[in-house]
Amino acid sequence: MYKDSGTNFASLSPTEIKQWLESFDTVLTDCDGVIWVDNNPLPQATDVINKLVGNGKQLFFVTNNSTKTRPEFVDKSVKLGFNVGIENIISTAYLAAQYLKAKSFTKKVYVIGSTGITRELDAVGIRHIGIGPDNLQGSLAEAVRGFTPDPEVGAVIVGFDEHFSFVKIMKAASYLNNPEVLFIGTNTDERFPMPDCVIPGTGAIVNAVTTCAERLPTVMGKPNKYICDILEQQYNVNPTRTLMIGDRCNTDILLGKNCGFQTLLVETGIHKAADVKQFAQSDDQETRKLVPDVYAGKLGDLLPYL
Amino acid sequence: MYKDSGTNFASLSPTEIKQWLESFDTVLTDCDGVIWVDNNPLPQATDVINKLVGNGKQLFFVTNNSTKTRPEFVDKSVKLGFNVGIENIISTAYLAAQYLKAKSFTKKVYVIGSTGITRELDAVGIRHIGIGPDNLQGSLAEAVRGFTPDPEVGAVIVGFDEHFSFVKIMKAASYLNNPEVLFIGTNTDERFPMPDCVIPGTGAIVNAVTTCAERLPTVMGKPNKYICDILEQQYNVNPTRTLMIGDRCNTDILLGKNCGFQTLLVETGIHKAADVKQFAQSDDQETRKLVPDVYAGKLGDLLPYL
Repeated sequence: MYKDSGTNFASLSPTEIKQWLESFDTVLTDCDGVIWVDNNPLPQATDVINKLVGNGKQLFFVTNNSTKTRPEFVDKSVKLGFNVGIENIISTAYLAAQYLKAKSFTKKVYVIGSTGITRELDAVGIRHIGIGPDNLQGSLAEAVRGFTPDPEVGAVIVGFDEHFSFVKIMKAASYLNNPEVLFIGTNTDERFPMPDCVIPGTGAIVNAVTTCAERLPTVMGKPNKYICDILEQQYNVNPTRTLMIGDRCNTDILLGKNCGFQTLLVETGIHKAADVKQFAQSDDQETRKLVPDVYAGKLGDLLPYL
Repeated sequence: MYKDSGTNFASLSPTEIKQWLESFDTVLTDCDGVIWVDNNPLPQATDVINKLVGNGKQLFFVTNNSTKTRPEFVDKSVKLGFNVGIENIISTAYLAAQYLKAKSFTKKVYVIGSTGITRELDAVGIRHIGIGPDNLQGSLAEAVRGFTPDPEVGAVIVGFDEHFSFVKIMKAASYLNNPEVLFIGTNTDERFPMPDCVIPGTGAIVNAVTTCAERLPTVMGKPNKYICDILEQQYNVNPTRTLMIGDRCNTDILLGKNCGFQTLLVETGIHKAADVKQFAQSDDQETRKLVPDVYAGKLGDLLPYL
């Protein structure tokens, strides 16, 4: 049914759409650019999500955003009209906490990030240090002399941190000098372009620490397969009967490809049909992985068929 | 005379050493780990440098350190007994200023760095903004709203900055969103390992900005060829009759290889004979580039032959 160059949802017959909708039991969806933009739901997105849940699909919001806890995501979702609970949210902060819990981690975590991460660590009883402003006071030599590594630190988590600083790179890299200290990155999104400025993404922060530590982190977020492990182990998800929906091919669609999921791109965020066409024509096999099975103008286009 | 696996200076006969010393007119040398460590000259290094100058060699101290101006380097060098003047110093801050001067640059520079850079810009009459602490005050939303890009900024220089912050990444990437804004990195050294901590190098800072800006900088420092252009254009240096001395193969020796210089590794800093042996045995051509022509225990080993 699907073309190598991606299938336009609008070109499918009602019978083909019905068949497609019956081909998955689990739906994973990105949030920003798919179901909402900032605090505004996208047209009919709320109805589509609620119908999918009503029709018995197992639903997960999958987000690379590490600044909110799962209860905070639920609050936002419910306020915007989505019928979801904490069991429907997979965030990178949650995954990082689960990752350490699965390793029976009992030491402390040095966190570059926000309360989005530390509250998820609190929820699994893992101690942490580091969040909040930590800037150079006095000279660099004084900062070096004044830094006493906490011997209880056994992991470094790097996520989105608006207080990111030179001193934080120094501390993270110093802990990571011990090869036994675990290194976790929540996600590697490069940036958030705004009308008049560019907001750094976690990827910029992770790359600073990676360069200085001369080590690569285990990354929790899309497009890395770790989410898939959690879904299979904790929720019995069957990859071939799972649909990943997203607006960004190099995170959402690639996650789908990396995990063996079906994929749907909606054109209400980063990537559009023209990008899909370009990816499909590439000579590079890795680029061709960015082509979704199906693409639609918006998530709301599914509503008449649910 | 030289082996593909590097030639041990100690294995050369006095005749071979004399021949070797006569094969170059220009000597470029790294500083830290070669002629001094912090504020202590290495054994006989002062005598070797002063003899080389006395024997008529054209000498340059070539440093990736962007925190000092050339006059500040001269001060330090003279205090430690080296007979050098400003004409003998090539620093990345100086190179960055020369790079913009050569382009007849008349706009402003947004600097992530220190007075080491801004004083070199002042010396060539180029205006700048940005140095010093610049941390998040209030919320991220306030910082975004409060940032008014300076329309006069036409270049971003990224160097070593102990006040590096999230806000600085945001500003640099925002300026670099305009493809006409020039992007210069002083150097890409990853880190400075200390006994109890790891101090971030400029490479960590550059990589954070690069990730967020989705652009690569023109890098001034070793191992990039730009130094070679300046030496040929401004000082008529002949690459084949030039010796590059260093303690780090992936900056100093690689610069030599990239520029067609002869190379000497001294084992008083980062890399040792054992590393050279390992590089020489690599299947990877790029790794084999790290093998110096000659390696010696210390620079002082040359003294008896000068």
